[in-house]
Amino acid sequence: MTRKHNFSAGPAALPLEVLEQAQSEMLDWQGRGLSVMEMSHRDKAFVEVAETAEQDLRDLLSIPANYKVLFLQGGATSQFGMVPMNLLRGRSSADYINTGVWSRKAIQEAARYASIAQAGSTEAQGYTRVPTQAELTLNPEAAYVHYTTNETIGGVEFDYIPDTGSVPLVADMSSDILARPIDVSRYGLIYAGAQKNIGPAGLTVVIVRDDLLGNTLAGTPTMFDYKVHADADSMNNTPPTFAWYMTGLVFKWLKAQGGVEAMAVRNQRKAEKLYAAIDASDFFANPIDPVNRSLMNVPFTLADSALDGRFLQEAQASGLLNLKGHRSVGGMRASIYNAVPEESVDALIAFMREFERTAG
Amino acid sequence: MTRKHNFSAGPAALPLEVLEQAQSEMLDWQGRGLSVMEMSHRDKAFVEVAETAEQDLRDLLSIPANYKVLFLQGGATSQFGMVPMNLLRGRSSADYINTGVWSRKAIQEAARYASIAQAGSTEAQGYTRVPTQAELTLNPEAAYVHYTTNETIGGVEFDYIPDTGSVPLVADMSSDILARPIDVSRYGLIYAGAQKNIGPAGLTVVIVRDDLLGNTLAGTPTMFDYKVHADADSMNNTPPTFAWYMTGLVFKWLKAQGGVEAMAVRNQRKAEKLYAAIDASDFFANPIDPVNRSLMNVPFTLADSALDGRFLQEAQASGLLNLKGHRSVGGMRASIYNAVPEESVDALIAFMREFERTAG
Repeated sequence: MTRKHNFSAGPAALPLEVLEQAQSEMLDWQGRGLSVMEMSHRDKAFVEVAETAEQDLRDLLSIPANYKVLFLQGGATSQFGMVPMNLLRGRSSADYINTGVWSRKAIQEAARYASIAQAGSTEAQGYTRVPTQAELTLNPEAAYVHYTTNETIGGVEFDYIPDTGSVPLVADMSSDILARPIDVSRYGLIYAGAQKNIGPAGLTVVIVRDDLLGNTLAGTPTMFDYKVHADADSMNNTPPTFAWYMTGLVFKWLKAQGGVEAMAVRNQRKAEKLYAAIDASDFFANPIDPVNRSLMNVPFTLADSALDGRFLQEAQASGLLNLKGHRSVGGMRASIYNAVPEESVDALIAFMREFERTAG
Repeated sequence: MTRKHNFSAGPAALPLEVLEQAQSEMLDWQGRGLSVMEMSHRDKAFVEVAETAEQDLRDLLSIPANYKVLFLQGGATSQFGMVPMNLLRGRSSADYINTGVWSRKAIQEAARYASIAQAGSTEAQGYTRVPTQAELTLNPEAAYVHYTTNETIGGVEFDYIPDTGSVPLVADMSSDILARPIDVSRYGLIYAGAQKNIGPAGLTVVIVRDDLLGNTLAGTPTMFDYKVHADADSMNNTPPTFAWYMTGLVFKWLKAQGGVEAMAVRNQRKAEKLYAAIDASDFFANPIDPVNRSLMNVPFTLADSALDGRFLQEAQASGLLNLKGHRSVGGMRASIYNAVPEESVDALIAFMREFERTAG
């Protein structure tokens, strides 16, 4: 067995130690004679798995006590609908910041339920940066302000938390949650699909201030009501137990690494060296304003796009997987989430230099 | 490692061979140097996993070409809302057959969107049987007729497919799909949470006749629109890839066992011997009308409920797990899904006889 360097944007690399533990106890979890995936979610032992995962996430992000942590299904795409259905609370409009593909998807779904204003947009700049605080036009009557902390496809990330006064701030953190410490108290609601920086696909984490719950739009399906899930400790119905368990292992791994503070240092180092390699060469380019370059998703282009196919082929032959850019932007993209080791980034940089030398 | 006998109602036992395969390739799937859980759902290799799983399910159940097969999230509880939101198609009422806890939950959610009539109910009989065809009162103007083929908690199962004329028939088959052959062409829509007879929790299979798609209720979230998922081959957003892969392994396993025809023979034999053991004793009892006894979930009581705790404790000590009945009905319940081997049923029967001899 040879593990390769995996730069997938999601579902993405998982920590090797986590996969090894899951493997070792797959047929017989904790000596109980069955897999954790064969147990009822109501089993006391599984409830402990679930509660421990929640507590570990609370510890990692210092989540205040007045926030509920939910483990749901449906991905960020379900959240695009759940957020307006739950957070409009009798208001008719919400503000959205538009910084790329995922922001636009969130806007599109929310617009089915409310009047949506773009509080800021960098579409005219080709999404190469995010709007500054001074560029935001915020409506004090808005039900909430929504933004995408990191655009997985564009590779553009907020370098600040928007100040929205008393209007609740909602963030899609699917691709950069747990990459660094965050001040949860600045947010009304945070959501993240698990499959980038948390665990396997099929789980969505929601962190929501409890005073925002309990006032859904008429016609909201029960499964789209945060309060139903909060009241049932995310067990209103059968949760994705294996994904929840895996997520718990990732949280334990993060703690063992030194928590999100240590991950931030490592992530910074990984990203800086990769951007530096790109900037040092005329052969590679990244178009994003340096202050908004993503810590997690690094898109780059080759000076001659005719070489893209060869680059990907030789990268794969060198054990560097999943570097193809998203079909909507082309070029390359290296996703370097928490679970991608620094050695993978080093291997990529070495390959890029060698490729430029031989093909450039 | 000692694998025990697992009678969990769900999440439930998985075939040992499936767990072993998942374990063996957990760090390195097909020699690619990464786990199947770490791959993009858009990766050609994963798309093949997904398509193969669908084709195998089509083969197993002989699903006609004019039916879509969807792999979704959210469990049967999401389907309780999705069914009316998609299938009302401008009509104002639907018929539901009430045979127990899960039927009632489906009715409760549907009643938020339409006028729901109980086309039949055995509530007055304590749900010890299902209504006969002659007892059904069907409204020819109903948008659809919904029923629960097998009540997981009550252990009561339909012994016939209701004839609803031209009104589409919708079935919650969460706990008995793939237990025997079914005539899919009799149905408008079939749904099943995976965690009983299909795979791990977090995946829901929907089989739907294609002419029923595309006419959702106003305000239906995009993720609740069957047509969106059908048009995107269930990849409108990131699907639960690992659960989908595991489900594919279960389908391959079912084919290797001889398909649902062979499973039906084995399931019949397992259930018959367990019910025979219950009926042969005055110490154990099952209240369900023999024609409607569930093939999958066998609830039984002890003549002296004061012995329940001891029964469960000694069963566990003998390697027989998860026999406690649902909290709403008490007593015991043995769920004997496809993946529960006949030897587990034999071990349970032997234990029951011994317990009666020593404690009865």
